[in-house]
Amino acid sequence: MNAAMPDAIRQVTHRDNVGLSKDGSAVVIIDQTRLPGETVYLTLRSPEDMTDAIVQLKVRGAPAIGIFAAYCLSCLAGQIPSTVYSAFLSAFRKYKAALAATRPTAVNLSWALNRMEQTVLDHSDKSIAELCRLLQQEAIHIHDEDAAMCKAISEKGLTLVQDGDGILTHCNAGPLATSRYGTALGPILLGTERGLHFKVFAGETRPLLQGARLTTYELSRAGVEVTLICDNMASSVMKKGWIQACFVGCDRIAANGDTANKIGTSGLAVLARYYGIPFYVLGPTSTIDRACETGDAIEIELRAPEEIRELYFRTPIALPEVACYNPAFDVTDHELITGIVTEKGICRPPYTQSIAALF
Amino acid sequence: MNAAMPDAIRQVTHRDNVGLSKDGSAVVIIDQTRLPGETVYLTLRSPEDMTDAIVQLKVRGAPAIGIFAAYCLSCLAGQIPSTVYSAFLSAFRKYKAALAATRPTAVNLSWALNRMEQTVLDHSDKSIAELCRLLQQEAIHIHDEDAAMCKAISEKGLTLVQDGDGILTHCNAGPLATSRYGTALGPILLGTERGLHFKVFAGETRPLLQGARLTTYELSRAGVEVTLICDNMASSVMKKGWIQACFVGCDRIAANGDTANKIGTSGLAVLARYYGIPFYVLGPTSTIDRACETGDAIEIELRAPEEIRELYFRTPIALPEVACYNPAFDVTDHELITGIVTEKGICRPPYTQSIAALF
Repeated sequence: MNAAMPDAIRQVTHRDNVGLSKDGSAVVIIDQTRLPGETVYLTLRSPEDMTDAIVQLKVRGAPAIGIFAAYCLSCLAGQIPSTVYSAFLSAFRKYKAALAATRPTAVNLSWALNRMEQTVLDHSDKSIAELCRLLQQEAIHIHDEDAAMCKAISEKGLTLVQDGDGILTHCNAGPLATSRYGTALGPILLGTERGLHFKVFAGETRPLLQGARLTTYELSRAGVEVTLICDNMASSVMKKGWIQACFVGCDRIAANGDTANKIGTSGLAVLARYYGIPFYVLGPTSTIDRACETGDAIEIELRAPEEIRELYFRTPIALPEVACYNPAFDVTDHELITGIVTEKGICRPPYTQSIAALF
Repeated sequence: MNAAMPDAIRQVTHRDNVGLSKDGSAVVIIDQTRLPGETVYLTLRSPEDMTDAIVQLKVRGAPAIGIFAAYCLSCLAGQIPSTVYSAFLSAFRKYKAALAATRPTAVNLSWALNRMEQTVLDHSDKSIAELCRLLQQEAIHIHDEDAAMCKAISEKGLTLVQDGDGILTHCNAGPLATSRYGTALGPILLGTERGLHFKVFAGETRPLLQGARLTTYELSRAGVEVTLICDNMASSVMKKGWIQACFVGCDRIAANGDTANKIGTSGLAVLARYYGIPFYVLGPTSTIDRACETGDAIEIELRAPEEIRELYFRTPIALPEVACYNPAFDVTDHELITGIVTEKGICRPPYTQSIAALF
């Protein structure tokens, strides 16, 4: 069932996984849990469907979740029956809180929600109808800005690699996780458009296999040479000399450069250090949480054991009573990171200074 | 379908995954690809079924493959119609070559096959019937010796950990992979019998999930506290201070200590070094290949891409055209190994000397 793209979508294109319906009353996403087998679009109108979409990873990727949440608030604002500002604000904040509670680690979600709330606070003199128009405009701005940031990150990241390089990536930080070029995959896609050839190794990213399901899908479709490996094969491909750089995305960057990203990232950074391979984190400045001094302060989401024991498997792979530890993210120490590539420039150690200089 | 153990088995017990039928004409194994869901015994008589059992990992684990292959040659020798020694030897060597060709990395297979051949060569004066009796006796010796070696390894390994320690292991080097206590799991099982409590973390071991399917099964049944993690979570649990030692098995140890083991082992060793955790390799001296100077000379088996893209998954996780790199093993540099635990003693760096001193 490869569904056609719904006719009413305003923003969704072949490179955008999140958009607004033409009448502005619904958010449209590609269901990322169905890829690569099926391309299914979902049209979401209720707050429950919206929060479920984040929790169940139908929409995922730190920047994409931020964009999605902004569109959700735009749609939900239109459903608030009140015409009184204080009642509108109160209802708006309930929707905002429900969206904010879905996933704790990525900072882009709260960043986008706060921008939307600020729009409401900045225009308390406007009519509710006008507020709704401004909210839709702000959500589209957030989306457009992300696309521009991804392009800028891609340009800057592309200066870090050479034609023919082997690049290792983890999880999915491509168009599906962001908008347009993506972050970690951005330099690869942009370079490929310009005729460069990279040899990309994609870690499958257990337990939910975003690398296998999404990264190889996006890169294959873009004509990039990509080889899928299990996560535990990274040491082998590095040792063979096949990797000249690691490119990963990020969910939250602390003020000292410690970076939370998909579980497994910190291990790759240790391996890259051991094998002498540069390790780059790519993400928009909206991923930097300056209120967070170090990675120790980043909350790591723990997910259900069934994701390890059962999900995506034909049959359970372990007995149901077996305990599982299933953190969704880990923190990579800043000392293991060669550079942090943002739309404003590439930060180098010491990060406390280079990150502060961005703002 | 939890099949009862066949009545005719001579050697198979609840802790032995490989045995000989009572009449000596067949090898009986637990089909390890069906665990943990089903306990299915297979009775193998033809050379094709025997080689398939190794290739398809129905029997796996370097020491267990050696024991299995010895039993196979014992059974197959009884099927050789010739009563002339030279014709018998020729047919015997054909069976031996077919078994040797199944998997290239583990050295125990060729070690056991060579011992069986030596039995034939040492008794060229005997009748074929007597030769067959000696071969069966030699296979049982190999099995019994392995059980004794595993016990000795377990005792020595147990001196390396304390009550309450967290231990990380990879793949499966327990009773199913060896005989009785196992190698890497041996100290854990022996210590548990003696009232010690360990907190074991088992890496699931993609692509074929031996850690998830077999290690958690064996440890749970033995009453050991075990937590299943995806391979890419090792860095996180080490960083949290939950791991006091890593215990892994081995498929071939070079003269300088470089060790081939299940893919992912070398990455764990790099992580252990980074986090200051001792990293121990446990295996019988039959795993040491002194003819192999360094790990560079060890052939690494490459397996089918479907094991990554499809096997054990409910649906394919990547498009069929996606390239996969699927090495079954990797080599851990000797400089990352804290100690090599054999039945004869614990080798410490420099390994070229400490390993030579074993012989």
